[in-house]
Parts: sequence; structure tokens; C-alpha cells
Amino acid sequence: MSYCLGMLLDVGLVFMSDTRTNAGIDNISTFRKTFIFDAKEDRRIVILVAGNLAITQNVLSRLEERLEDDDVKTNIYSQVSMFDVARLVGATLREVHGEEADALKNHDVDFSASLIVGGQIKGRRMRLFNIYSAGNFVEATAETPYFQIGEAKYGKPIIERVITPQLSIAEAVKCGLVSFNSTIRSNLSVGLPIDLTFIPRDNFEGMYHHLILEDDPYFNSLGDIWGQGLRDLFSTLPDPEWIR
Amino acid sequence: MSYCLGMLLDVGLVFMSDTRTNAGIDNISTFRKTFIFDAKEDRRIVILVAGNLAITQNVLSRLEERLEDDDVKTNIYSQVSMFDVARLVGATLREVHGEEADALKNHDVDFSASLIVGGQIKGRRMRLFNIYSAGNFVEATAETPYFQIGEAKYGKPIIERVITPQLSIAEAVKCGLVSFNSTIRSNLSVGLPIDLTFIPRDNFEGMYHHLILEDDPYFNSLGDIWGQGLRDLFSTLPDPEWIR
Repeated sequence: MSYCLGMLLDVGLVFMSDTRTNAGIDNISTFRKTFIFDAKEDRRIVILVAGNLAITQNVLSRLEERLEDDDVKTNIYSQVSMFDVARLVGATLREVHGEEADALKNHDVDFSASLIVGGQIKGRRMRLFNIYSAGNFVEATAETPYFQIGEAKYGKPIIERVITPQLSIAEAVKCGLVSFNSTIRSNLSVGLPIDLTFIPRDNFEGMYHHLILEDDPYFNSLGDIWGQGLRDLFSTLPDPEWIR
Repeated sequence: MSYCLGMLLDVGLVFMSDTRTNAGIDNISTFRKTFIFDAKEDRRIVILVAGNLAITQNVLSRLEERLEDDDVKTNIYSQVSMFDVARLVGATLREVHGEEADALKNHDVDFSASLIVGGQIKGRRMRLFNIYSAGNFVEATAETPYFQIGEAKYGKPIIERVITPQLSIAEAVKCGLVSFNSTIRSNLSVGLPIDLTFIPRDNFEGMYHHLILEDDPYFNSLGDIWGQGLRDLFSTLPDPEWIR
């Protein structure tokens, strides 16, 4: 499993992904799930992946190999809009489905893959998409300015309560890290390091990436402060009258 | 879906279950998922159910009908220990599986059912079991004194951080209600009313049941206080240095 989070804020796009993959709990390894496309000045694009690693790596390999091609239809750097980028990623996922799904089915393996695709192309608005296994996708809006993929449930309550487009980067990152902390505590299949990427809005220089490692003192202290704060908050809750 | 929670505390057993069932989001109804066996003075037993309602109702109907039988092997009130009660419930679930599983499979319906069984029989210790679809089961211990079944993930972080055997009833109930609040906020398939049942340890008179309805002022205020407290706690978190 994985846990990835994308947030569409007024200040820009924040992406976070864990790096653990497991084929059974006795087969755990570390893979990056954040893929950055920033080789061209006119666009900043990030893709996060969850689900079957063989499928998502297959999709990303195709997208990366085609950056060398002259075929504008399949080259991320040739796409005119982020909507076109999302369609290309969805189409590539369908391509992989066409080649792989039957073989996987013969081994009772689900064709499971979900991707978060976000970014901005010069002169166009910043957009964030959630692409499903079927290659179809939805876009984040002001009402729901975030997407979670993978092991999303443990970390959802804090996200739901806190995330709004008006958050600062620091607030959004803190909320994301608390969400990751709850998820990592509850689920072995999600683990550090955490890839953190920020794309500022309408700014094609200031892209920012940070890798949060196991021993990151800030992440660990944040978890401790949050855990203690929850217990303190809990101790302030009034008792129900109807308990004798 | 459902959400049920059972906690094994020094003071006794606390059981909580929601009452929503859904066959598709356009087919939501209210069913009790808490079943109490307290007709005999020598035992207090509670069963919580999650999963396919047709399966769990089938299991409970068999258990209830057999309360009238003379067959001591299949009568909950004739079981010598809570371990025997858990084995009886598991065996009854396997009986239902034998009759229903193939028909369900023909319609691509999973045979999904999980039950929490807890209680105490006079002269024996209080025990709490989690029974899986296969009819096998595990028992709660001091290290993990609770079981969740159904839609458990949203509400797990607070449970994990707070529940210990030393909690008072009020503390355990508050923790459970916060967990239910987070789950209900995040998942349409879990809803009020909430059935709350308490069996005091070594006391066969003091059993306690309370139904928390939609308009319960305490539950609603608890959700508000918790939500505001989370936002306040969040606002106290230090910023990461590595954010520019």
C-alpha cells in the first residue's frame, strides 16, 4: 500500500507521498512515488502513484521514455494544458491495462492503480487531478482542494477538518505530516521517507522538494506534540451525564 | 458498512455500534447491530456485527432460535465459558457459510461477516473476542484491549492513542464517541443512532444500555468541542524550518 496526498492551495500545489511498497509484509521495500516533470521552463508537473507498483512503474516508464519522442500526442512536455496531461496519463494507464490486465487476472491480481497529477503550464491555471484505475479522472475544486490515494482513511479526519485553499504552505505541510503520522502509526504498509514537493502558483522558478527521512527531528517531534496534544485535548472533554 | 467497537477495561466491557446499513448509497436503512444475551442471571453477553447484513442476521437468528432448544451444544445460555460462546458463534457462522457462500458467489457477493463477542459468565473471567468471516477468532489482551470491526480506519488513530485497560467508563465512552464522530464525518455508510452497552466486571446486576440518537446534545457538542480542539491544537504546531 501507499499513502499520497495532493493539495491545491491559493499559494500553490503541495504533494506528499510515502515510499513504502510491500508484496506481503515479509517483502517491504522503498520506492519513490513522486515523479517530477520540470525539465521545461514553461511547466511544473508532479505525478504521485499508488496501487500495484508494477502497473504504476509501467505507466511512468512509458511517459518518461516518450519525453524523447517526437510524437507530440504522447509527450508530457508537448501537452497544451494540464487537462491534456491528465488525459495523456489516463490514456497511458489504459494502454497498460490493455496489455497487463488479463495476465494479472489469471493470477487473481487486481488491476489497481491510482495517480494524482497536478501542476501548471505557463499562461494557464494550476490544476490537480485524481486518476482512477480505469483512466478516468476528477479535478480538485475549492470545496475539496485535496486528493488522497492509497491508504487514505487513517489520515483523513485531520485533512477534512483543516485543509482549505487559504492555508499557507507551512500549515498545509503540517496538516499533511500529521495525517501521515496517524497513517504510519496505524498501518505498516505506509512508511518514511516522505517525499514533499511544492509548486508555487504562477512561479516557474520556485519549485521546492524535500525528503523527510526516518530520523527527521521535526517530523518526530511533530508526532510527539500532536500525540500529547490529542491526549490533553481528550482529557478536557466533558463527561456524558447519562453515564452512572 | 458498519462501525463497531468493543473495549475490555478493568471496570468492565464497553460496546458501541452504529446502526446504518446500506446496499448502495440509495438504499440506506437503520438496523441494530448490538445483540444482548442477559436473560440468565449467571451471564452477560453482547454480540456486535458488521459485514453482510443477511449473513449476520442469519447467524443471530440461529443463535436466538436455539435459546429455546434443549440442545446444550448450540444454546448460548448453556455454554460453560466465554471461550465456548465464541466457538459456538464461530461454528454458527461456518454453518451459514456452508449454506449461503456458493449462492452468494454466483452473484459475486463476498461472504463478509465479522463479529465482536464479549461478556462474562459467573465464576469466570470477562473476555472479548473478534470473530472473522471464517469463524476463527482472536481474543483481546491487555496490550490491545479493544476490537474494531467494519469501517474502522477513520476512527482508529484516537483509539490507538487513548485506550488502555485502566480507563474509566466515561473516558472509554468519550474516546469511542470521538472515534465514531470522526468515522461518521468521513463515511456515509456509518450513522447514528449509536448503541452503547456496558457490562461491569464481576457484577451481574449493573448492565447498562444507552441509545445515542441523532439529536443527542452531548454527542453533538462532543463533536464540536473535539473539532475545535483539533484546530486549536493544530494552530499550536511549530513550523518546519525547511519550509522557505
